[in-house]
Amino acid sequence: MEQKVVPVGVSARHIHLSAEHVAILFGEGSELTVAKPLSQPGQYAANETVAVIGPKGSFPKVRILGPVRSASQLEVSRTDAFSLGINPPVRESGNIKGSAGITLKGPAGEVTIEEGVIVAARHIHFHTSDADKWGIADKQLLKVRFQGDRGVVFEQVIARVSPDFALDMHIDTDEANAAGIKNGDTAEIIE
Amino acid sequence: MEQKVVPVGVSARHIHLSAEHVAILFGEGSELTVAKPLSQPGQYAANETVAVIGPKGSFPKVRILGPVRSASQLEVSRTDAFSLGINPPVRESGNIKGSAGITLKGPAGEVTIEEGVIVAARHIHFHTSDADKWGIADKQLLKVRFQGDRGVVFEQVIARVSPDFALDMHIDTDEANAAGIKNGDTAEIIE
Repeated sequence: MEQKVVPVGVSARHIHLSAEHVAILFGEGSELTVAKPLSQPGQYAANETVAVIGPKGSFPKVRILGPVRSASQLEVSRTDAFSLGINPPVRESGNIKGSAGITLKGPAGEVTIEEGVIVAARHIHFHTSDADKWGIADKQLLKVRFQGDRGVVFEQVIARVSPDFALDMHIDTDEANAAGIKNGDTAEIIE
Repeated sequence: MEQKVVPVGVSARHIHLSAEHVAILFGEGSELTVAKPLSQPGQYAANETVAVIGPKGSFPKVRILGPVRSASQLEVSRTDAFSLGINPPVRESGNIKGSAGITLKGPAGEVTIEEGVIVAARHIHFHTSDADKWGIADKQLLKVRFQGDRGVVFEQVIARVSPDFALDMHIDTDEANAAGIKNGDTAEIIE
């Protein structure tokens, strides 16, 4: 049987902003500017960063990923969350109801969001053609193995299938460090 | 078949010191004092801490675990290693040849060690009676599952068997955070 090998991208802490929050943080009429395209078509790392400020600690420069979204969403690792002094849930991107809050500060202003902070659930983006070829359905939970001296099988890996996606597994820095994974390594879907 | 369930201890960054380094860092004639006994018989968290200083960052208060050992050994997570700006190997405790160096600073002095910094390889301490009951040999590599929304199977888990050990799995903070594990949670040896 063909091995189901996927490239892995390690997501450092980052934030998606709503247009409203871009205006508050960077000033009315401001727009995000593209620094670097990401693996998912249309997505990019912006030149702009914001400070995020929690009750216990802060990060002065958190990268903004564009384009703007309908709601702001900060994605941190559990390690980051301890540093900030917050307790965000593990969630799929976009599912922020009742998640943790945080204060954001930009050059033009600051805003405190009541929800929007999550620890991103590990997931794989599949183009529809990859998913079809491998018999994988959207929302399916997969098991994915990394080899090495910190070998791990990640369970509960969420499949996300769309004609707009490029094949890529996304894990956070805690998961990468726990398994000895670097950006660009590959993993195998085993179940 | 009986489930092989083990309690899990999450190891934060910590250091073991040689008697020579205790004398340099705390002054001739100084001794470590016991703050709290650990799960392994005879081991304890000391009241004393040292600063560890890397090329990129430092941690002002790293807990010393006693009693003194024949060589000093700093155990950090990969996340910690990035903060310090060093690249320690994943190793079993005690196997420090050619590992990373660091500067240690105490109230009475400082010392730079050329080796002794490791990322601890995940392992399970077995009392000989537990190992016999479950048919597990010293140095055997095991697979261990944690359930939950960050479910993981850790592979390459080293069995360490001794009549001086108490049953306990040791992982670092990256591994705990990646899998959503807290001190005192349990795991199952599956292979």
